[in-house]
Amino acid sequence: MAKNTTDLWGVHPVAEALRAGRRKFFTLCLAPEKVGGRREEIYALANQAGIVVENCSPQQLTSKVGHNRHQGVWAAVGAYPFSRLDEIIAAGKQAPFILVLDQIVDPHNFGAIVRTAQCAGLHGIVIPKDRSAPPSAAASKASAGALEHAHVACVPNLSNTIKQLKASGLWIAGADRQGQADLFGSDLSGPLALVIGGEEKGLRPLVKKHCDYILAVPQVGPIGSLNASVAAAVLMYEVFRQRVAANQSP
Amino acid sequence: MAKNTTDLWGVHPVAEALRAGRRKFFTLCLAPEKVGGRREEIYALANQAGIVVENCSPQQLTSKVGHNRHQGVWAAVGAYPFSRLDEIIAAGKQAPFILVLDQIVDPHNFGAIVRTAQCAGLHGIVIPKDRSAPPSAAASKASAGALEHAHVACVPNLSNTIKQLKASGLWIAGADRQGQADLFGSDLSGPLALVIGGEEKGLRPLVKKHCDYILAVPQVGPIGSLNASVAAAVLMYEVFRQRVAANQSP
Repeated sequence: MAKNTTDLWGVHPVAEALRAGRRKFFTLCLAPEKVGGRREEIYALANQAGIVVENCSPQQLTSKVGHNRHQGVWAAVGAYPFSRLDEIIAAGKQAPFILVLDQIVDPHNFGAIVRTAQCAGLHGIVIPKDRSAPPSAAASKASAGALEHAHVACVPNLSNTIKQLKASGLWIAGADRQGQADLFGSDLSGPLALVIGGEEKGLRPLVKKHCDYILAVPQVGPIGSLNASVAAAVLMYEVFRQRVAANQSP
Repeated sequence: MAKNTTDLWGVHPVAEALRAGRRKFFTLCLAPEKVGGRREEIYALANQAGIVVENCSPQQLTSKVGHNRHQGVWAAVGAYPFSRLDEIIAAGKQAPFILVLDQIVDPHNFGAIVRTAQCAGLHGIVIPKDRSAPPSAAASKASAGALEHAHVACVPNLSNTIKQLKASGLWIAGADRQGQADLFGSDLSGPLALVIGGEEKGLRPLVKKHCDYILAVPQVGPIGSLNASVAAAVLMYEVFRQRVAANQSP
């Protein structure tokens, strides 16, 4: 594939990329009998955008994609449309609500977190350039296409980013199993960046040091270990709840 | 395998089944080089319980289990130890908090929901006999072993169960995308059963009819569809938050 071209597969990623209108489509192939409920919508969106739909067999798609999880839809598209950090901060106006992911490396966790972040009204997501799952086709699939609408900034250095967020007036709340601050007793209704650590190791010490406080999701019982994307969802929705209660837009 | 014998595989399911002490172990096989961090704990727990550990090769385990997701641990164990509904209600004392799953059929969603339910302090989970993912090895794996500690009741008819829960003084809160009640504005701190519908179709009409009210997790943005297990987590943790605030044990 040419430089700055990548692939996208699955019904929701392709349909949402068409709806969002942010990516250039070079090729769009459908195996119509496999696509299911959103087929007519994909034809209509492509038609509106002047994109030619090529019909293929499911086998042809499988050989293009390299596996059979394509759900009858594959496209060659432009690279993921990253946002700039300052754009994300500006989108939040008086009270930005931004997610910072410190080394979430599993594309399924990354996609699941992006999906929840879009539903909970976050203004954007920051990922580090290295040691992070990229906004790949697999991540877009795991996000049910939410990644195609999300505003994601990719930065060289999270510590510098956190300093920049602080300088813009945001509070920095880290999230970690060992966190001391009570999630449900903390005021999270103002300008906020929520920093979430990787699946295994949590927040890196240097990132932790730059946080204003470290929250933990309370857990009881003999297991006491929430899945990373579930913990992220509980954190984001507690902020959502407090923002609504404080009459911020969520 | 003999009647009332089933298999269990994966490090956390087997380690947690040993810790919980509720299942009889007929055979326990380890491929030690594959097991990782909890290996010594598994040997020690098995030793305490008088269970002989057989060493196998990873290939032997793969042929026993039928796939290679066993993480070097496999056991033949007694059937899943279901609880009775009245036991679950009694465990909640003055304010039971019970989850009712209406046709959650995906074992990964079922396992993920059980894992969160254990962390959020629920007293038990009710599933229907038909059209539900059973507490299988795959579900136990998806729950990170939480299923081995959970109290799960399997009932012939959910409508009758809901009537019984009402008669025991519980409020019945359904959860559905079309719900009218504001999750964050509803008092959920008392005796409560949370009824969650299946991945695609939500709550069945007859089940819905028996609910006192129907909650929805608020969602914004162009996608507006949370993953089933994420929505369940947000619901359970809002109840957790309110119970702690009302000085119930979570």
